[in-house]
Amino acid sequence: MRRYHLDWTVGHTSDPSSAPERFVPASVPGAVQLDWARAEGWPHYWQDAALERYEWMEDMYWVYQTTLSFPEMESGQRLFLVCGGVDYRFLVRVGERILHGQEGMFTPVELDLTEIAEDGDLLEVVVFPIPGSEIEPRGRTQARKSVKPVVSYGWDFHPRLVPSGIWKEAFLEVRSRRHIRQLDFDYTLEEDFSVARLSLSVELNASCVGTLEWSLIDPSGEVVDGQSVALAEQDVVDGFCEVHDPELWWPRGYGEASLYSLVVSLHESDGSTLDSRQQKIGFRSCRLVMNDGASRDALRAPRSRNVPPMALEVNGRRIFVKGSNWVGPDIFPGVAGEDAYRPLLEKVVGAHLNLLRCWGGAAVSKPSFFDLCDQLGILIWQDFPLACNKYDDSPEYLDTLNQESISIIKALKPHPCLAIWCGGNELYNEWSGMTDQHKALRLLNRNCFERDPDTPFLPTSPVMGVGHGGYLFRGKDGRECFEVMQQARCSAYIEFGVPGPASVDRLRSLIPEDELFPPRPNGGWLRRHGFCARDGEEESWLCPSVVESYFGHPESIEELVGWGQLLQSSGYKAMFEEARRQKPYCSMAINWCLNEPWPAAANSSIIAWPCDPKPSYKAVRQSCRPTLASARVRKFAWRAGETFEAELWMLNDAPHAIKGDRVEACLRFDDDESFALGWYFDSIEADENLLGPVLRFKIPEIQSQTFLLILKVEGRPDWSSEYDFCFIPSE
Amino acid sequence: MRRYHLDWTVGHTSDPSSAPERFVPASVPGAVQLDWARAEGWPHYWQDAALERYEWMEDMYWVYQTTLSFPEMESGQRLFLVCGGVDYRFLVRVGERILHGQEGMFTPVELDLTEIAEDGDLLEVVVFPIPGSEIEPRGRTQARKSVKPVVSYGWDFHPRLVPSGIWKEAFLEVRSRRHIRQLDFDYTLEEDFSVARLSLSVELNASCVGTLEWSLIDPSGEVVDGQSVALAEQDVVDGFCEVHDPELWWPRGYGEASLYSLVVSLHESDGSTLDSRQQKIGFRSCRLVMNDGASRDALRAPRSRNVPPMALEVNGRRIFVKGSNWVGPDIFPGVAGEDAYRPLLEKVVGAHLNLLRCWGGAAVSKPSFFDLCDQLGILIWQDFPLACNKYDDSPEYLDTLNQESISIIKALKPHPCLAIWCGGNELYNEWSGMTDQHKALRLLNRNCFERDPDTPFLPTSPVMGVGHGGYLFRGKDGRECFEVMQQARCSAYIEFGVPGPASVDRLRSLIPEDELFPPRPNGGWLRRHGFCARDGEEESWLCPSVVESYFGHPESIEELVGWGQLLQSSGYKAMFEEARRQKPYCSMAINWCLNEPWPAAANSSIIAWPCDPKPSYKAVRQSCRPTLASARVRKFAWRAGETFEAELWMLNDAPHAIKGDRVEACLRFDDDESFALGWYFDSIEADENLLGPVLRFKIPEIQSQTFLLILKVEGRPDWSSEYDFCFIPSE
Repeated sequence: MRRYHLDWTVGHTSDPSSAPERFVPASVPGAVQLDWARAEGWPHYWQDAALERYEWMEDMYWVYQTTLSFPEMESGQRLFLVCGGVDYRFLVRVGERILHGQEGMFTPVELDLTEIAEDGDLLEVVVFPIPGSEIEPRGRTQARKSVKPVVSYGWDFHPRLVPSGIWKEAFLEVRSRRHIRQLDFDYTLEEDFSVARLSLSVELNASCVGTLEWSLIDPSGEVVDGQSVALAEQDVVDGFCEVHDPELWWPRGYGEASLYSLVVSLHESDGSTLDSRQQKIGFRSCRLVMNDGASRDALRAPRSRNVPPMALEVNGRRIFVKGSNWVGPDIFPGVAGEDAYRPLLEKVVGAHLNLLRCWGGAAVSKPSFFDLCDQLGILIWQDFPLACNKYDDSPEYLDTLNQESISIIKALKPHPCLAIWCGGNELYNEWSGMTDQHKALRLLNRNCFERDPDTPFLPTSPVMGVGHGGYLFRGKDGRECFEVMQQARCSAYIEFGVPGPASVDRLRSLIPEDELFPPRPNGGWLRRHGFCARDGEEESWLCPSVVESYFGHPESIEELVGWGQLLQSSGYKAMFEEARRQKPYCSMAINWCLNEPWPAAANSSIIAWPCDPKPSYKAVRQSCRPTLASARVRKFAWRAGETFEAELWMLNDAPHAIKGDRVEACLRFDDDESFALGWYFDSIEADENLLGPVLRFKIPEIQSQTFLLILKVEGRPDWSSEYDFCFIPSE
Repeated sequence: MRRYHLDWTVGHTSDPSSAPERFVPASVPGAVQLDWARAEGWPHYWQDAALERYEWMEDMYWVYQTTLSFPEMESGQRLFLVCGGVDYRFLVRVGERILHGQEGMFTPVELDLTEIAEDGDLLEVVVFPIPGSEIEPRGRTQARKSVKPVVSYGWDFHPRLVPSGIWKEAFLEVRSRRHIRQLDFDYTLEEDFSVARLSLSVELNASCVGTLEWSLIDPSGEVVDGQSVALAEQDVVDGFCEVHDPELWWPRGYGEASLYSLVVSLHESDGSTLDSRQQKIGFRSCRLVMNDGASRDALRAPRSRNVPPMALEVNGRRIFVKGSNWVGPDIFPGVAGEDAYRPLLEKVVGAHLNLLRCWGGAAVSKPSFFDLCDQLGILIWQDFPLACNKYDDSPEYLDTLNQESISIIKALKPHPCLAIWCGGNELYNEWSGMTDQHKALRLLNRNCFERDPDTPFLPTSPVMGVGHGGYLFRGKDGRECFEVMQQARCSAYIEFGVPGPASVDRLRSLIPEDELFPPRPNGGWLRRHGFCARDGEEESWLCPSVVESYFGHPESIEELVGWGQLLQSSGYKAMFEEARRQKPYCSMAINWCLNEPWPAAANSSIIAWPCDPKPSYKAVRQSCRPTLASARVRKFAWRAGETFEAELWMLNDAPHAIKGDRVEACLRFDDDESFALGWYFDSIEADENLLGPVLRFKIPEIQSQTFLLILKVEGRPDWSSEYDFCFIPSE
């Protein structure tokens, strides 16, 4: 199997019956927008202050061209065009002959060109105008009849910029006369995990004699099972492997992310190899079970049902989910690949997070994303590409959704990281208006049940009892995020966020100097989501008056950014740790959001584009340590004379017990440290929290604008914690 | 197509390899228990005080025998054994040859005997021991691995008595050489209901020449569309009919239950008829949409989802569901047929009810039940046969459930009455322990979606926001059903009940004279669910101390029954009318239950076995009139000096506006009528209620134990209402 690169050019036409007037070099994988911008010498889109210039591209037909150069082929060999995906509706033609037409970017294309094309032929991929542009008004509802990621139609952290084009690898491939068309596998685990039984199914391109061999190789490189079968003119072979005491695949923090390799090879009768495939396999079970305390019914008549199960059990062990929402690393998913994924995923691991929710507004990531998550032990909650819309019930939409969801399931099911399927984002909420009766969601449930019945399926998030929000340090109702989380009782927090500004350096690169300070709701700040990013909220996401209400009027951009980032850090600590304190009724804490697809002036991400951690990243990392001393404090700002109160906790979700120790709680005012409390705690069981004493301390008159609560764990300084609070001077 | 009756005998053996020692005549359809009891001269089971004598039958193999008598057949004709269903696991054999084996009672059997059997052969049906008898403890959990109605394992209104045997028609059928194997149809309706497009698919038993004709006949007998096609050696024919301005099928109270007939016939090339089929078709659309006021989200963060939609829309019109739970008309579903169904269904219509929920604890009814509901305009909510258990996730159970659910869907989908599919009863509650992730319910959703996607599907009842209960006039927490319902806010009430005793005559026939009065928790009262019917409630369902707390110690069985029935009637009025007052947020009021499968001394049914309405039936009929004057009163019992309060309403769910009128509200104490209030109300829109004034009246000292609130509507005495209340004398 040899692969050959293709050189592409691209041009546009408003009339599909006439050819483009001009062709420019095209990067594949990529997007037509980027190719055109490069040819025109426009600034990089992420530095561009005039994204309006991309608008006309939405309504064009884009024609990719490449001249086929046939490689040397032995007799009987086949030449394939292979393409991972074209965004969004397209056709493929050689000369005048249309080989293929498709709607949907997640279904790959494989076309056997051997008898159809000749050396020197012109191969074209014609990409249609973006879907939904005929729908009024402009905005996210335009995506409601297509399986196109909705975020690109404009979101509170994403400009309107709708990608088109070949977004995954496209190449020529020479294959043997007889080759492996498809390798599928499935496995069952004994209830006590003592045996894994692997079944495989190999589909050949045609009936074949010769032999098919497979072997299963354990993580240390030893072959643990395998077989070689003689083929009797068959084109499907079913096989089987068994592993006793398999090394299980565990998410980060619970054990090794062990991966086996399944190697399958097809041989001629003379022993020469025709084709081979390799597949990584992680053995694990995954279930959603009832949250502790959620299966007790209300006693009062009439009774309703219990909330749905949201506690994740991997390999029979409850995993407290500490996660983050993944929104894609770039506005153009075509340019994002392993290089973009890896540093971000390493940051995920570095912050002790064990799950990413791949949010349904964004594109489903490329295969390397899931390969990395398999290796790093990061669990994946995958939304299908539906978000905040009332998706259509028409046969046309359902057909496309059926095709695309099957392709997504086929691509992701082999990955042990894939822990939860979800129909999409906030579809049962008022702003979407879908219900349990909508066919799109019944179809997704059907497809997941048929193709991956052992992975949990949620129709959407939130389901009943699960929370989305808040998204501000202090909400419109005046409640701080401290209070919001302490007053909530959710079985899982799947989105919660606190906005924070980008670094001063980044802001200087984004916003013209004369607009930078003081920030105003126009120009760069507006374009970069600093203001008016959310409906009806002028100050989101920069929130300058919230900052000012705590710290007074900032004198400089540095002061504003510092204070804004402090709020974000403090808010995230309060929210993550409060969700952890609500364990075991609460089983998940997933913040909104991890990253951003382009540089925003401010938003809820803890890592700025492309992979630049904000101070809040460190805060989340502190709060997500498996074991730590923690404080529940009811508010952020304090005045002299008030009695500061902090309920002390030891939080532990490590899979092992921890020894008793002593927590020393101090308050630091104006660089003076006051000892407030010493707490001796006994040993704590695996995955259990311990509630300790309440610290009370009268706040003195101080000079600084902040003070610090410090919890030192004597024997384990790595479990110690610090919390900033705001001091409000007397008027 | 000619049918031939078969004469059966039945015997039992504990060892399937040896034949029964004794055979007795068998009634088919029926049950082996009834055949054996008849042969033994036992009393009818419903009069039997010793049902223990049936227990051993559960563990037997029951062998049905019949000697085949081949009818005259022309050359090429085929002889079929046709059987609608055998309960539960069975095999069919001719001599030593096993023709068929099956688990599941809802999948019919058709066997072509032509080449397999000969005149005079012995045909046997061997029925296996009941499923689950090996599971501990004895009781409903024994049904959790089978698709066997769970009620027969014992319920609070049903003794343990588990039917076995051929429970649907079984006969020989001579078919033409070429005949119609299957007729399927589907239709779509234009959104404005202006056109119905019917597609049909006719499957023949083998390729055929000749012609296939079909015609669609409207309710008045006119042919509206049809076609005749010449067959070119084909075994499947797809056809099409179109109806402009179709007469829609409407549920009772909203229009005619219009039925078209589709007639399909197969003809030889010479024109002679080979076979024909007739199918009734009702054109209607059915959806569950959001309840009014349910799609507004809570504003406080974090937000969860909205409750699921429970408002039923038929042909684009919201239908306020007034319904009742159907629990089967007999312990032995095999003996229930049209004769049992018809009088009960006529009572349903007579009480202005428009929907029956066919409860998942009982068997799915026979075809004549659904035919009658089609004719009478009664909507059907069909639970699959799962109830109050944690059903198995094993491949064996899922296979059977798959087969049985597909058979049920195929049988019921053609009926326009079929409005809602539901996975089963109370599966998400604590006592069942199933969740959204259980495969059984995902499988049912999948099968309904694939085979009947336009009919709503609920995984179970209750879903979130929907209520089941209460079930007592006054609950353990001291709240009367008046209060329970007024304090509740459910989008639908799918079960609520008030128990009442059977008539004195019936009680005399059930309970030995010396046990009859005063009732005690043993003997006949215990057997007949008068006491200890529900876990932890000694007094259910007779509830003598509740009766006594209102009316004092009864002097006779007549007094006890009279008071008990008054409580049931008053309770049902309060609950049905309160649910109606909570419209439009509330969309359904379905009481538990309509009927009973054997005579109970007391329970929540409004019609005693077999079809004997209790006084509460009249009460429900009053409360379910499309239009009535109604009173919301907070409690049932009043003392002298208290101020009686009644909030007056006009309830209207008629599909047309009503004219204004005058309500005169009176209180009748000791036969003296006191005028309390006159209320002039204006015209009221279709399907709208009107809240009127609050009546206040100081209760005088009276002699009677009850007093009456009378609401007279001057121009429309048929809208007038009366309510009984209890007077508690001063001590």
